[in-house]
Amino acid sequence: MARIVMKFGGTSVADLDRIRNVAMRVKREVDAGHEVAVVVSAMSGVTNQLVKWCQELSPLHDAREYDTVVATGEQVTTGLLAIALQTAGIDARSWQGWQIPIRTDGAHGKARVDTIEGALLVERMAQGQVPIIAGFQGIDPERNRITTLGRGGSDLSAVAVAAAVKADRCDIYTDVDGIYTTDPRIVPRARKLEKISYEEMLELASVGAKVLQTRSVELAMKARVRVQVLSSFEDKPGSLVVDEDEIVEQPVVSGIAYSRDDAKVTLRRVPDRPGIAAAVFGALAGANVNVDMIVQNVGADGSTDMTFTVTKSDLARARDVLEKAQDTLGQEEIIADPDVAKISVVGIGMRSHAGIANTMFKALAEKNINIQVISTSEIKVSVLVAADYTELAVRALHTAYGLDGPG
Amino acid sequence: MARIVMKFGGTSVADLDRIRNVAMRVKREVDAGHEVAVVVSAMSGVTNQLVKWCQELSPLHDAREYDTVVATGEQVTTGLLAIALQTAGIDARSWQGWQIPIRTDGAHGKARVDTIEGALLVERMAQGQVPIIAGFQGIDPERNRITTLGRGGSDLSAVAVAAAVKADRCDIYTDVDGIYTTDPRIVPRARKLEKISYEEMLELASVGAKVLQTRSVELAMKARVRVQVLSSFEDKPGSLVVDEDEIVEQPVVSGIAYSRDDAKVTLRRVPDRPGIAAAVFGALAGANVNVDMIVQNVGADGSTDMTFTVTKSDLARARDVLEKAQDTLGQEEIIADPDVAKISVVGIGMRSHAGIANTMFKALAEKNINIQVISTSEIKVSVLVAADYTELAVRALHTAYGLDGPG
Repeated sequence: MARIVMKFGGTSVADLDRIRNVAMRVKREVDAGHEVAVVVSAMSGVTNQLVKWCQELSPLHDAREYDTVVATGEQVTTGLLAIALQTAGIDARSWQGWQIPIRTDGAHGKARVDTIEGALLVERMAQGQVPIIAGFQGIDPERNRITTLGRGGSDLSAVAVAAAVKADRCDIYTDVDGIYTTDPRIVPRARKLEKISYEEMLELASVGAKVLQTRSVELAMKARVRVQVLSSFEDKPGSLVVDEDEIVEQPVVSGIAYSRDDAKVTLRRVPDRPGIAAAVFGALAGANVNVDMIVQNVGADGSTDMTFTVTKSDLARARDVLEKAQDTLGQEEIIADPDVAKISVVGIGMRSHAGIANTMFKALAEKNINIQVISTSEIKVSVLVAADYTELAVRALHTAYGLDGPG
Repeated sequence: MARIVMKFGGTSVADLDRIRNVAMRVKREVDAGHEVAVVVSAMSGVTNQLVKWCQELSPLHDAREYDTVVATGEQVTTGLLAIALQTAGIDARSWQGWQIPIRTDGAHGKARVDTIEGALLVERMAQGQVPIIAGFQGIDPERNRITTLGRGGSDLSAVAVAAAVKADRCDIYTDVDGIYTTDPRIVPRARKLEKISYEEMLELASVGAKVLQTRSVELAMKARVRVQVLSSFEDKPGSLVVDEDEIVEQPVVSGIAYSRDDAKVTLRRVPDRPGIAAAVFGALAGANVNVDMIVQNVGADGSTDMTFTVTKSDLARARDVLEKAQDTLGQEEIIADPDVAKISVVGIGMRSHAGIANTMFKALAEKNINIQVISTSEIKVSVLVAADYTELAVRALHTAYGLDGPG
């Protein structure tokens, strides 16, 4: 007997037939003797329609009213799934954020979960009732207004509920069947990972593999919630995101990720003096521009070139800030290049293996791919290359690290 | 300065343009210096879709889950209207039933309002904020589950809120522009009533004029809430439903109502003995069949004919109950006739005027309309006629009581 939280996304509950299908999956777990709680998203398309209405009325709408409107999507799904489960002979009850309650901070539209009262849910589960919990929503600190957690927040709700009820596992049902060594659309021989560590998943999620919302992985890691990603349309095991201690045979590299969300900025010939980096990045931070990779060449004649990446959506703002600060910074020129891709090799095995980065550089060199910027962390090596080479680079690295599955 | 509750039905908030139109109407009252609270229905069509989903999943769905699902329609409207008002420069905030709270009994799907906490709403109105309240919904006695008041319940919500905040008036905006002496589709010369008493409205509502939900009129009468029915698409005064003391020139007859919802049942030759009526109507009551008009002829040979009306939807059940009780009741035959219409003449002036019924009988006789059953109350005379004569009877009576407006 295990205690399981099952989470179903929008495409899994898109219509009544799919809701009945979800009910059958839940029933199977209950019939197997498990204690089950379910977290649901809005039926696909519903949230977009509600968001669109708010935006059409006013682009600068009150976030509290936005939350009131968009939270209804999940509420509808909870009631419908409860009815479908009851019809299948399973005791079930819908729960909204304010009923549990799921307490959040007051940051409407992108609230953070503070605490979830798990006691009542645990009690009901012990009685054989299946709680159907609205994902994506909570209640503010004054306990009178609905909050939402931001897009993709239902994953976060599921992990938070799993932590609150001390679940043995949190199963995230979605329209892909697991986590792959890389994007299967680019590398058909990509392999599904049976297990992956939180740390690796976090690096993969943040660099482009959009299977799990980043914050939900952070929370799972912090609360040690075992997460499984699996398909709601097929009957096969998915990928487990777990503590690295659970992974017996750790490969050196687990996956290759890529992102086309970044742009490269170079400040040509800034004065090579102490404090110049602080001045540049202080100005950017002041304008809420996040900087990712940074390189600075050693200067010869008292000046240096400084290169870094920002997200494409921040590029215009970054350029504006730097131009306005030209008097202070003293750069000769700002060169912006949005046509870049970040390719990352991720693996906890890197901690104990030398030469990982070198394999990467060699593999890219063999394909004549120029590396523009390099950055490394304990379990990741990232390089910036021209966007045109994205697929070629990912394929070359996937082969170089021996990740290709049977063809 | 007055305190006004404004209620807008589904067709009045059917899309974003109409919601903006409602915002303009609310703004006009606020700009005129009034304190305003607004009660809204779901956007038209939304509730029907939600109900349909519940029914398709299970005709015998859990009423608590049904309430969870259908209450979302009003929630969406509250948030959108709040945004529209804020965009128009008016301070506004959405309120769901559980936030106020609007406490009801636990009869999910058709709950009755117990109490509404008006204090917070009054405080906000005094500060110049417009509360936008979800109609049709409340919270159960345990304060953890959403209840709904049954179809048309937003009228009831509006009147209950008006009573709770001691409003000077409750304006019900709808797609007709007031209450008429009879159905204008049958009598083009029907006149709009400037004022009508609660008692008359109650009789008119219950016999077919579907402008106001019956329970909302009962509550308005009990709590002495002045109700105005008016159009949300035109700019003209509507009809006021008020205490009869407020109506200076009381006409003898205020309106002619009709209903095709009834069926006639005749028990032929039941034994004419004490207790027979109790036996018949006891059996029907036991099966939850409501009986309306009743006549019993005096019998000559120890038996009598007994005729009464039930709603058409109860007819099959009534016949079933009576057939099963044949041993006890001893009727010779059951004759059921669904092709009947009930025509009612309503007016508080009847209390002090004789001959009202006679005018009715004479007018119908002149058109050769046979009266099948007659029933009277203090302010109403109803007759049952063959359904084919409905329009003719309504027109003849409208003229006979001098209700025709200028052609």
